[in-house]
Amino acid sequence: MNGAESLLRTAKAAGAEICFANPGTTEMSLVQAFDDMPGVRSVLGLSEGVVTGAADGYTRMTGTPAMTLLHLGPGLANGLANLHNARRARSPVVNVVGEHASWHQPHDPPLAGDIESLARPVSGWVGRTGSARSAAADFARAWQSAATRRLPATLIAAADHMWSHGGEPAPIAASPPLPLVDDQQVHAVAKVLAGEGRPALLLGGSALTPEGLRTAARIAHAAGGDVLTERSPARIDRDPTVPQLRSLPYFPEDQLRLLDEFTDLILIGAITPVSFFGYPELPGVPVPASMRVHTLATPDENALGGLEQLAESTHSEATHNATGAITEAERRRVQPPHGALDPSAVAAAIVSTQPEAAIVVNEGISSAAAYSKLACAAPAHTELALTGGAIGMGIPLATGAAIACPERPVIDLQADGSALYTLQGLWTQAREGLDVTTVVCANRRYRILEAELHRAGVRQPGTAATGMTGLDNPAPDWMSLAAGFGVACIRATTGEELVDALHRAHAEPGPHLIEALL
Amino acid sequence: MNGAESLLRTAKAAGAEICFANPGTTEMSLVQAFDDMPGVRSVLGLSEGVVTGAADGYTRMTGTPAMTLLHLGPGLANGLANLHNARRARSPVVNVVGEHASWHQPHDPPLAGDIESLARPVSGWVGRTGSARSAAADFARAWQSAATRRLPATLIAAADHMWSHGGEPAPIAASPPLPLVDDQQVHAVAKVLAGEGRPALLLGGSALTPEGLRTAARIAHAAGGDVLTERSPARIDRDPTVPQLRSLPYFPEDQLRLLDEFTDLILIGAITPVSFFGYPELPGVPVPASMRVHTLATPDENALGGLEQLAESTHSEATHNATGAITEAERRRVQPPHGALDPSAVAAAIVSTQPEAAIVVNEGISSAAAYSKLACAAPAHTELALTGGAIGMGIPLATGAAIACPERPVIDLQADGSALYTLQGLWTQAREGLDVTTVVCANRRYRILEAELHRAGVRQPGTAATGMTGLDNPAPDWMSLAAGFGVACIRATTGEELVDALHRAHAEPGPHLIEALL
Repeated sequence: MNGAESLLRTAKAAGAEICFANPGTTEMSLVQAFDDMPGVRSVLGLSEGVVTGAADGYTRMTGTPAMTLLHLGPGLANGLANLHNARRARSPVVNVVGEHASWHQPHDPPLAGDIESLARPVSGWVGRTGSARSAAADFARAWQSAATRRLPATLIAAADHMWSHGGEPAPIAASPPLPLVDDQQVHAVAKVLAGEGRPALLLGGSALTPEGLRTAARIAHAAGGDVLTERSPARIDRDPTVPQLRSLPYFPEDQLRLLDEFTDLILIGAITPVSFFGYPELPGVPVPASMRVHTLATPDENALGGLEQLAESTHSEATHNATGAITEAERRRVQPPHGALDPSAVAAAIVSTQPEAAIVVNEGISSAAAYSKLACAAPAHTELALTGGAIGMGIPLATGAAIACPERPVIDLQADGSALYTLQGLWTQAREGLDVTTVVCANRRYRILEAELHRAGVRQPGTAATGMTGLDNPAPDWMSLAAGFGVACIRATTGEELVDALHRAHAEPGPHLIEALL
Repeated sequence: MNGAESLLRTAKAAGAEICFANPGTTEMSLVQAFDDMPGVRSVLGLSEGVVTGAADGYTRMTGTPAMTLLHLGPGLANGLANLHNARRARSPVVNVVGEHASWHQPHDPPLAGDIESLARPVSGWVGRTGSARSAAADFARAWQSAATRRLPATLIAAADHMWSHGGEPAPIAASPPLPLVDDQQVHAVAKVLAGEGRPALLLGGSALTPEGLRTAARIAHAAGGDVLTERSPARIDRDPTVPQLRSLPYFPEDQLRLLDEFTDLILIGAITPVSFFGYPELPGVPVPASMRVHTLATPDENALGGLEQLAESTHSEATHNATGAITEAERRRVQPPHGALDPSAVAAAIVSTQPEAAIVVNEGISSAAAYSKLACAAPAHTELALTGGAIGMGIPLATGAAIACPERPVIDLQADGSALYTLQGLWTQAREGLDVTTVVCANRRYRILEAELHRAGVRQPGTAATGMTGLDNPAPDWMSLAAGFGVACIRATTGEELVDALHRAHAEPGPHLIEALL
């Protein structure tokens, strides 16, 4: 077999079922191998931002590494923004980037460039194939690095190593589970909780499951504190037993105000929360000076297990299951919205029509927080957020999540400015017949930038500022854009219309886009 | 004034009139500065591939550096593919990439990343602002490097250096012209031309003007040789006095066959032509072993001046103006096409309707060569080609060229697969009211990849290969996509319809898209 076949056979044996791809000439042997070695299905994206974002969505839902196939430096470059998000999500995306034949590289052909330099900022591992014979083992190293470090890994595969004979499939060892939290750490935190202060448990990463959230709520309740969730989680799973919890707010002054309620911050699968951006006169790490910060579990440790250890150590399980204070708390009822649309109305419409077991991709940007606030009233669901802040994630991520979980409906709460970055992903949704409902919050502006200008003291933006933050003149027409990619589209201008549109989208198979005019 | 204002004032003094932009929070001081210091107009692109490609198109037409404003690593990342093309075009694009406040960078906020590592592969110069006071001088260094080295330059501008006071505008020295060719080099080449062999003059870069092409044809004629042009020139200007010339073909075996006609290859603003890709059993540099290669002018030297020196040295000017052999040669007449469309018919339709002084962006990929073959029959025009092979160049490049030359009609001969990478550029064309006619060659496949599969011996592509090279199921509907971005669209299925559509597009103001069904 040739190098390409050995690589793909190794991927299949490791558990790869899907490869998100946009190949070019240097990847033709791999393209052939997909036909000659069935078992790994290729899914085409019309640009690489779709490919890498879909891989991120896929791995966030399956928990297993996701594979991409990209064309040389420029193909990788187009996918870097969503790989940046994948890195911040700790997503094991395994990129195979085709490269010129090894003997052709020194000639510096037009598409040649420094692929390593592009890959390194988003990859925990970057390597090259050494030969056809070593190609599968080289791939195995990439896969194992991604699975173990939970970061993207990038293998640069020379065309001649792929087309030459002598390939040998390589074994891939199972990746180790997240390490358990040290008992001493648990006891140290338990001691803090037994003290006089008012602690905040900040949950992130693997702690964000219904079980983790419930356990944390019981522990916090017993300790006279509260639970907070990280700002933009890679994944959070909620069900009706999960209490309403606050997320860390976006602006540093709001975070400071929230944390001021507490004396101690306990990090559980989360890191010390830094400000999204730096602002004059505001701290980069908006944590009150008097606050004590403790770590129960880093994002690289088993935070969920750590919570259970902590519950045991603080005896909070028995005590608070008995009172049932949290599980019986009255759940907020969300009413379907009426009249004009704003972010809260969009969120209420989604929550009040949300089918069981939905996956909600949240790239709402200025419309994002409203959903998370209401989400505890929704049926059991998974929310996937914008971890790295690189816009253009939503449509691709929803595509990959839908491919990972074909039995679950996917809802993409989507800012319009961000949607315009990677709208090509709608085509993959149509081609694959995915059950994705994209709700475009069409305010026709980079609303978040208007807010930032206002914060910077600009009360009357001039022509230039208005031109660079506005998406009107002409307003993109999502009815046409969706139709152009074969996706059914409905326009909604009121709460009633949006609820109707969501009902219709959920009832019909295949992808839908709803343009919600804000 | 603050750092942003000093930077922008320096840009204006250097001659910047336009800044192609997609800013974010870290660039808000610069956004404000555009309003406070009028004189540099900002043009918004809906994704950074549009921004950098437009800057490349602008500088190819003006010959002066073009400025972009990008948001952090991910914003730069999205623009890298077209910066790769700009690097291969030797385009002086000056990127200002906003960065977190200097004191916030160590906190590793979500959008942080290694911007230098991303910028280096496409930039001849990468640097950072040192302070508000030095910001303008730092920008001047970027600008001068771009202008002098004719490569993109990337300045990473920290947000606090932009918003802080103490900015001081900096002078920018005029950039030196391309150095003249050494006389000894001219005489060495003249000696070759005086010999017994059959020379090919390979023209590239600054030699590709009507004057350069005519002069080269005279010299070649006198020496019993011929003129060839480089494969994908950044810019070639033709007028009716330019003879029909062959370009280097795409595939290495075709290039070998062509060069086999000659004994000597004279490089004039061009480099030794390497194969676009490496193939088994074919050389990476498809130049016959017996061929002697000589350099009259590198791409970094004044190739046009070198041609004049050579004409003088070989006395070919006087002799051959007298015979008029070339200027009076009968020009090929191109007939408007009839019936079904193929690449030749599309090229014939464009050439036969082409207005005077058009700029023709050629990202036709598998439909590209047909145009260049007929172009000598068109009225005076400029052709801009895909220098670096990173697809998604056409729509952005046409946008920037139209902004550079508002009085000239722009025609974008555009492959559909490539167009789908950066279709967002249509919106900027609509917003700015640009006179661009995009002719999408809708064969609904990556046709070039089908050809590559065939070369690799795949006669019956399987499901995977068909899925990764086909753009049907569903076929993108360009009528809808163009309408979604506010661009008038016409569909053409025959030569007659395409000619009609082109006439209409050229007659009406503003952008048009013609979906030519191949």
